[in-house]
Amino acid sequence: MKGIIFVIDGMGDRPVKELGDKTPLENARTPAMDKMVEEGITGIMDTIRPGVRPGSDTAHLTLLGYDPYEVYTGRGPFEAAGINVEVKPGDIAFRCNFSTADENLIITDRRAGRIQSGTDKLAEVINNEVKLDDVEVIFKESDGHRGVLVLRGNGLSDKITDADPKHEGNKPKTVKPLDDSEEAKFTADIVNKFVEQSYELLKDHPVNIERIENGENPANIILPRGVGAVPHVTPFEELYGLKGVCVAETGLIKGIAKIAGMDTIDIPGATGGIDTDIDSVHKYIVDTIKSNKYDFILVNVDGADEAGHDGDIFGKRDFIEKVDNIMADLKDMDDIVLFVTADHSTPVSVKDHSGDPVPVFIKAPGLRVDDVKEYGERAAAKGGLCRIRGTDVLYIIRDLMNVTQKFGA
Amino acid sequence: MKGIIFVIDGMGDRPVKELGDKTPLENARTPAMDKMVEEGITGIMDTIRPGVRPGSDTAHLTLLGYDPYEVYTGRGPFEAAGINVEVKPGDIAFRCNFSTADENLIITDRRAGRIQSGTDKLAEVINNEVKLDDVEVIFKESDGHRGVLVLRGNGLSDKITDADPKHEGNKPKTVKPLDDSEEAKFTADIVNKFVEQSYELLKDHPVNIERIENGENPANIILPRGVGAVPHVTPFEELYGLKGVCVAETGLIKGIAKIAGMDTIDIPGATGGIDTDIDSVHKYIVDTIKSNKYDFILVNVDGADEAGHDGDIFGKRDFIEKVDNIMADLKDMDDIVLFVTADHSTPVSVKDHSGDPVPVFIKAPGLRVDDVKEYGERAAAKGGLCRIRGTDVLYIIRDLMNVTQKFGA
Repeated sequence: MKGIIFVIDGMGDRPVKELGDKTPLENARTPAMDKMVEEGITGIMDTIRPGVRPGSDTAHLTLLGYDPYEVYTGRGPFEAAGINVEVKPGDIAFRCNFSTADENLIITDRRAGRIQSGTDKLAEVINNEVKLDDVEVIFKESDGHRGVLVLRGNGLSDKITDADPKHEGNKPKTVKPLDDSEEAKFTADIVNKFVEQSYELLKDHPVNIERIENGENPANIILPRGVGAVPHVTPFEELYGLKGVCVAETGLIKGIAKIAGMDTIDIPGATGGIDTDIDSVHKYIVDTIKSNKYDFILVNVDGADEAGHDGDIFGKRDFIEKVDNIMADLKDMDDIVLFVTADHSTPVSVKDHSGDPVPVFIKAPGLRVDDVKEYGERAAAKGGLCRIRGTDVLYIIRDLMNVTQKFGA
Repeated sequence: MKGIIFVIDGMGDRPVKELGDKTPLENARTPAMDKMVEEGITGIMDTIRPGVRPGSDTAHLTLLGYDPYEVYTGRGPFEAAGINVEVKPGDIAFRCNFSTADENLIITDRRAGRIQSGTDKLAEVINNEVKLDDVEVIFKESDGHRGVLVLRGNGLSDKITDADPKHEGNKPKTVKPLDDSEEAKFTADIVNKFVEQSYELLKDHPVNIERIENGENPANIILPRGVGAVPHVTPFEELYGLKGVCVAETGLIKGIAKIAGMDTIDIPGATGGIDTDIDSVHKYIVDTIKSNKYDFILVNVDGADEAGHDGDIFGKRDFIEKVDNIMADLKDMDDIVLFVTADHSTPVSVKDHSGDPVPVFIKAPGLRVDDVKEYGERAAAKGGLCRIRGTDVLYIIRDLMNVTQKFGA
């Protein structure tokens, strides 16, 4: 018996006039999921608590049974782990942009002309040449203009502000301590030095000279944000006795799984958008389940969230239909406890995460099948699970997998 | 106004093919409970939390308003209290079996031929002759081959393993400390000595000589298990200002009530099984309610749980129908707040407790009557209570009894 949490990222929504006052999920044609709903049990779920807007990171941590208020201080550690940086508890990690600054350090392009190549060479210089007292610097490029920075050493703190000014036309923000500790002051100072040194090291780098010659914005400064301390996390397998794996499109979700000690599977062609190679996503999910190497599989597909952020009503609906196609295989598997959910709602009207609960269903043997027959936010609210929380999910799955012990006698 | 929690132990279940995909409760003819559901309010309940499989002990502690994660370390203390051993906070208590060992101390019968008489005489020897340093030994026989052991003294711990090997053909397990404390080492040593001495004291006891002559297995060794420390518990009446009583079939449930400082009522003819004297159970429940001596009554009938453990589909269904007969009198009482529930599900397909929520209903004056008309797991999930927790029950009952104060102004 395998347990699966299948997260359709950001799927939850609100009624949309253009869809006849249906949500994208309600309006989508989803025969596979409807069939599983008909034969399963449904409900709504507050991933963290009612009205709280979860991030994808805090939502997934919660679904894996960790307390996000305890282990989550920022996105950096999970982004870093997601691109295979070997982070350690206590490391301070950041997401970064390669950006373009002019000679006065005014940021003229936060994404450095959406640079697609050469950042590995820039990263090499950063790793070799940045000098920050006794603090070890680990920098790695990610997709496009993105990268991660990890600071390792004694006396560091994550209680500091961001360097990224968020809007062009400004200098990098001076990083400031958020509390009175020496550690916060020291770390803020270190990050400010890092930003300055990045400009000095990158501005005349051959990669950038060539970009300027080609009329492209140079990637001549690095702007850290999303600071967080890498948490002490009890590995998933130690907590539950289940060998776990994560099949996901984005580094953030894979990073969460990595920090939880789970294996991760990369999906060639996955973009995390509605343009993702859905056939490849499909193949890697099904292959992982069928490999029989794992007791527990966390799946995440990201396009519905992206469409929600973009306010793309029909794109979101159509992507949900693509995901339903993936589900056809799972519908016919007998030896799984499948929990299908979103991590949060990303209403196309809000263009960001909201605190609306998400619709969930379970496919498993032995359920108290309810009389809900289609998958939708409002249909699910009438289901036999009523209203649950994200912290309940792994308890419910493990109970249905029959791998839990009685508490008491 | 009297408050009553009526627990039909282990009643919750899952759909069963042999019952036309109904649960035993859904399939049972329950006119009295259906009538109260029609005139009352229904819901589902997670006694501890969703997906957690409660023991009957931890479930009842929760229903009485105690935190099982705080007060529950094992079943022993409640079994001891249930047969009127006067336990004190700090005592270390065990359930025990009288068993049969051969001359090499191999256990050949864990239940000593299901001995029915003479264990009181064996217990007398144990109480008088066992010598365990400065530790006081209190041993008492219970039904059949069962007994309880209480250790009282300084420097004791419940962080030790069991002596019972669980399967015949093995020697008693050497009891081991579960942590590094001196207390755990000392207590493990004490229990190992107790087991050895029990064999020396009982092997040639006249009761056993006679059993051997009659071709019966002798009860010549005592195997403790289910160790727990007797908790400090604020008495029920002090917590709630309600004089409470428990009418139950089994020692475990009465023991929980006793440790909570409640009175208990013994029911002649009660077996805790589906063969119980249901008329006697009925009489003692109704007499206790009508005595007007108590503000709060905890009722437990145990047969549905036993049938669940046995996988006895029709036995479970038929027993629920018997319980419904008991309910006819309660249906017509006006001055009660009656909360009917199971403590946990014991699906006949699982043959053990599961984490499935249990169906509940309340009969009381002034309720927001919902439109559910029959008592069943899936019908209840559509009720006006939605999904509640075991910790909510006494709050709801006391509110409906109108004995609680506003919090604030």
